[in-house]
Amino acid sequence: MTARAILEAAQGRTIATAESCTGGMVAAALTDPPGSSAAFLWGVVTYSNAAKIDLLGVRAATLDAVGAVSEEVAREMAEGARARSGADIAVAVTGIAGPGGSETKPEGRVCFGLATPERTGVETVEFGARGRGAVRAAARDHALALILSALQP
Amino acid sequence: MTARAILEAAQGRTIATAESCTGGMVAAALTDPPGSSAAFLWGVVTYSNAAKIDLLGVRAATLDAVGAVSEEVAREMAEGARARSGADIAVAVTGIAGPGGSETKPEGRVCFGLATPERTGVETVEFGARGRGAVRAAARDHALALILSALQP
Repeated sequence: MTARAILEAAQGRTIATAESCTGGMVAAALTDPPGSSAAFLWGVVTYSNAAKIDLLGVRAATLDAVGAVSEEVAREMAEGARARSGADIAVAVTGIAGPGGSETKPEGRVCFGLATPERTGVETVEFGARGRGAVRAAARDHALALILSALQP
Repeated sequence: MTARAILEAAQGRTIATAESCTGGMVAAALTDPPGSSAAFLWGVVTYSNAAKIDLLGVRAATLDAVGAVSEEVAREMAEGARARSGADIAVAVTGIAGPGGSETKPEGRVCFGLATPERTGVETVEFGARGRGAVRAAARDHALALILSALQP
């Protein structure tokens, strides 16, 4: 299981999460194995824009300019979570779990941010209109894989 | 499913979560149904004491005096989540998911807080040493039932 592999790879490094469409599923997976408190510090579920601003320091101007489901907001969420929590690594997830999207932002589009001591990476994955539960699960698994990749040499 | 019943009962009222041992499972359940953003505002997973202090305003003196798994801390977590999020109702969960507990705090003990506009209630449930996953799932379901009870007339 990825969460167990993450815990083994962490070796003293700490992790924070900032979730929108996954709604806590990444944090729930990370805290599933016994002993996870050695690595998992802190997580937030920021469904509303106000929560993204208040808890993570996302800028209102960024939300206004490009919307919550964007690589820019994923970057600010990840960097805000890392700074606020003091964790070594922070992952951010913001996407359209559906059902339904918009003309410019289709269902299944999820943006990820990964902030480490060295850099912040962002990416967008189009999971497609496979249904809300499946998009959320796929986004959770992708976020866990990103964390694991950041911990491995 | 309880999350769907909560969403239907909310009727404009909003919800926040503050989780320790459930690690995001309550927020993940609440955000499972489509349209949950109408009711779910904000959640935090405060595994460390530092996170409970920083994100929820739990007092260090309370943590020192009675420990994180206590009705006093559950109360401060719920009230902190409600105040910070601006939600109508906030639920807090802090417990010993295990494996293992201590002489004074056995595995399976979980404290809950429920803050509403009228009052804050707290309670302790002994789920017993049924295993980490089962304790977490039972605590999640109990938290969802508390939220639903607060929303029903």
